[in-house]
Amino acid sequence: MRVAILGVGTVGEQVAKILIQNAELISARSGKNITPVVGVVRNLNKKRDVNFELTDDINSVISRDDIDVFVELMGGVDEPYKIVSEILKRKKAVVTANKALLAYYRYELANMAGETPFGFEASVAGGIPIIKTLREGLSANDIQSIKGIINGTCNYILTSMMRDGANFSDVLKKAQDLGYAEADPTFDVGGFDAAHKLLILASLAYGINARPEDILIEGIERINDADIYFANDFGYTIKLLAIAKKTANGVELRVHPTLVPKDHMIAKVDGVMNAVSIVGNAVGETMYYGAGAGGAATASAVISDIIDIARGISSPMLGYKTQNAVSELKLLDKDEILTHYYIRLKVEDRLGVLACITNLMSQNSISIDSFLQTPNFDDGDMTTLFFTTHTSREADVKHVLALLRDQEFIKDEPFMMRIEQ
Amino acid sequence: MRVAILGVGTVGEQVAKILIQNAELISARSGKNITPVVGVVRNLNKKRDVNFELTDDINSVISRDDIDVFVELMGGVDEPYKIVSEILKRKKAVVTANKALLAYYRYELANMAGETPFGFEASVAGGIPIIKTLREGLSANDIQSIKGIINGTCNYILTSMMRDGANFSDVLKKAQDLGYAEADPTFDVGGFDAAHKLLILASLAYGINARPEDILIEGIERINDADIYFANDFGYTIKLLAIAKKTANGVELRVHPTLVPKDHMIAKVDGVMNAVSIVGNAVGETMYYGAGAGGAATASAVISDIIDIARGISSPMLGYKTQNAVSELKLLDKDEILTHYYIRLKVEDRLGVLACITNLMSQNSISIDSFLQTPNFDDGDMTTLFFTTHTSREADVKHVLALLRDQEFIKDEPFMMRIEQ
Repeated sequence: MRVAILGVGTVGEQVAKILIQNAELISARSGKNITPVVGVVRNLNKKRDVNFELTDDINSVISRDDIDVFVELMGGVDEPYKIVSEILKRKKAVVTANKALLAYYRYELANMAGETPFGFEASVAGGIPIIKTLREGLSANDIQSIKGIINGTCNYILTSMMRDGANFSDVLKKAQDLGYAEADPTFDVGGFDAAHKLLILASLAYGINARPEDILIEGIERINDADIYFANDFGYTIKLLAIAKKTANGVELRVHPTLVPKDHMIAKVDGVMNAVSIVGNAVGETMYYGAGAGGAATASAVISDIIDIARGISSPMLGYKTQNAVSELKLLDKDEILTHYYIRLKVEDRLGVLACITNLMSQNSISIDSFLQTPNFDDGDMTTLFFTTHTSREADVKHVLALLRDQEFIKDEPFMMRIEQ
Repeated sequence: MRVAILGVGTVGEQVAKILIQNAELISARSGKNITPVVGVVRNLNKKRDVNFELTDDINSVISRDDIDVFVELMGGVDEPYKIVSEILKRKKAVVTANKALLAYYRYELANMAGETPFGFEASVAGGIPIIKTLREGLSANDIQSIKGIINGTCNYILTSMMRDGANFSDVLKKAQDLGYAEADPTFDVGGFDAAHKLLILASLAYGINARPEDILIEGIERINDADIYFANDFGYTIKLLAIAKKTANGVELRVHPTLVPKDHMIAKVDGVMNAVSIVGNAVGETMYYGAGAGGAATASAVISDIIDIARGISSPMLGYKTQNAVSELKLLDKDEILTHYYIRLKVEDRLGVLACITNLMSQNSISIDSFLQTPNFDDGDMTTLFFTTHTSREADVKHVLALLRDQEFIKDEPFMMRIEQ
């Protein structure tokens, strides 16, 4: 079985390296010799540690008849979509690690692929076989919810903030120094990377054809030491969760920093590690943990797809042979999300303020579950108030926050996080 | 697709129930309608909540031509082996949850099955798709180690002992009352159930054809309050681990209570839950967590196998198309295991005893890593000594324990546990 690698960066090099290092095992498991024969690169002058042909002419490669599997590791969206479409037209198998490509074009690609194998295990949670788990391992289940820590950068930052009390920008800088965060961190810390991955998981679970712009995405940039204090004091940790949840009114898809009870299994996942908790109506809760990034872990997933193709893959790409069973599932409007909320308000420390706030809340159907005011966060004539709510409607909470923003006793932009019980 | 259920107990009833409850989803995912049409039971008079034909004549069922998949849920070893062999001779697909059958006959069954689908996802760790993960999800990896909490009874008991300081027999009784432990608990608390499951995982990882009698199996019955005290004091928790490990000298397969550092992910798995940590040379460590038993969780795994068959399963039953890549892997002799040890000795509290013990250890290549003696465990003129060792050879440790047993200052049977760092 002959493999072309389109984009020979960190992951591409590791795919080639592991195919050689574990060649005997892989051949015994797959029944075929799997060999990288050509790689496409942008810059042929850059030194690379590979022992196969390299070219910068991608068109000459995708038209070759002697290649059985094309591994797309180029990155981007429109360019790989064009390339992969060409390959699928020629009925050649594709394996990709490109979550952005799938976040936008997974249904178009599935239609084009038809019976042609299309692997994308590496697109979510790196080396954790979470695509296979949802598509095959848990196929008997009506999936109730998915909760994922699927951005290692955010989990590293939040773990450091919770553990050492460090502030966001200091930890971000350290993460950048360690190579855990990009120079421009927005895609990670803003929740967009996790959102791309969530959309892929949501298709496997619910057949939902949503795009990033359709769903709720919030990042971790505004979390401060007061939030960390509250979380620790009330038995929570803070995680950026990507959540897909089936409710009576539709499917919730959302990415945001979340307060999670410390004794929940997913709250125990620290540092750059990823984990996905899935609740099925038969199996109950299961959780999958491992490295969500890194060349070798991602290559592990890429190669598992190639081996599946060698063995004769037989699962429908997005988990459904027919969409009829899930066609009635609709994405729930962001405003209709129902959950528990945490609200932090920096206010003037004077008579009447708390009464005004609690009045505004109760007038807008926000019922308070717990409240904290502590001298630790007194600041001159200012103080910080912390609230958690009973189950509330997203639109109601946002409306109250907008009303509060206009009060003269509110001194900072109100801050809100959602809570998973 | 027509399914026969051989053995309609808790799991069988759940298989039928979930096939009906999730029928639309399962049909969309598999492309086929999957219907239970007949069940075999021992006692036809017992009331069962199923809406298909029941019979007590198994031979009439296994010879039927209109059945596509036979689900074996009878339990036992020799009887199901005979029945399943008959079914495979007729080239009919088999799905089983029977770990004992596989612990003894997996290679014979794989040979008989050939290209006929044979699913056994439910045989290890209930609803966690760990068979699929090892066979497919991590197929690119040279597996370095597997560490599993794969007996919920033991994990429930050990969690209660660690958390509440309760003693073994009290917690066992409570587990029996709650239905987590059998009236005769030996199979679970003695480590035999976990050993059966470990042998299945070891075949997928290493192609090792071992039987229960070939491997090291120790139970949790002798763990006492002193061990719990030591574990807590030194930052460990105690878990019954099933371990498969590739070493330079062979593959270690062993089941025993183990001291595990509390910050390790698998140490955080509490109560009746199961988890399996797998280290691959590409992916690093991944961990899989969920319910290891229970009718619905087990049925989830059984049905995922049936759906794979409907989709056209294509993976080799035990993970290898050819065994040549792993044929040189040999089971390491129990005596040659190298690990860290914990030793508890109840001794007379007098001059010279410690010197004698440490001399015996050093003369037999046992190097002490830490030592504890505390007034908490003084008992008249007796006290308890706790040791941990640097990496030692199993045979050396056993030899020292045999020598110690003969010393007149030793008052109780010496107790040893292994440590995973």
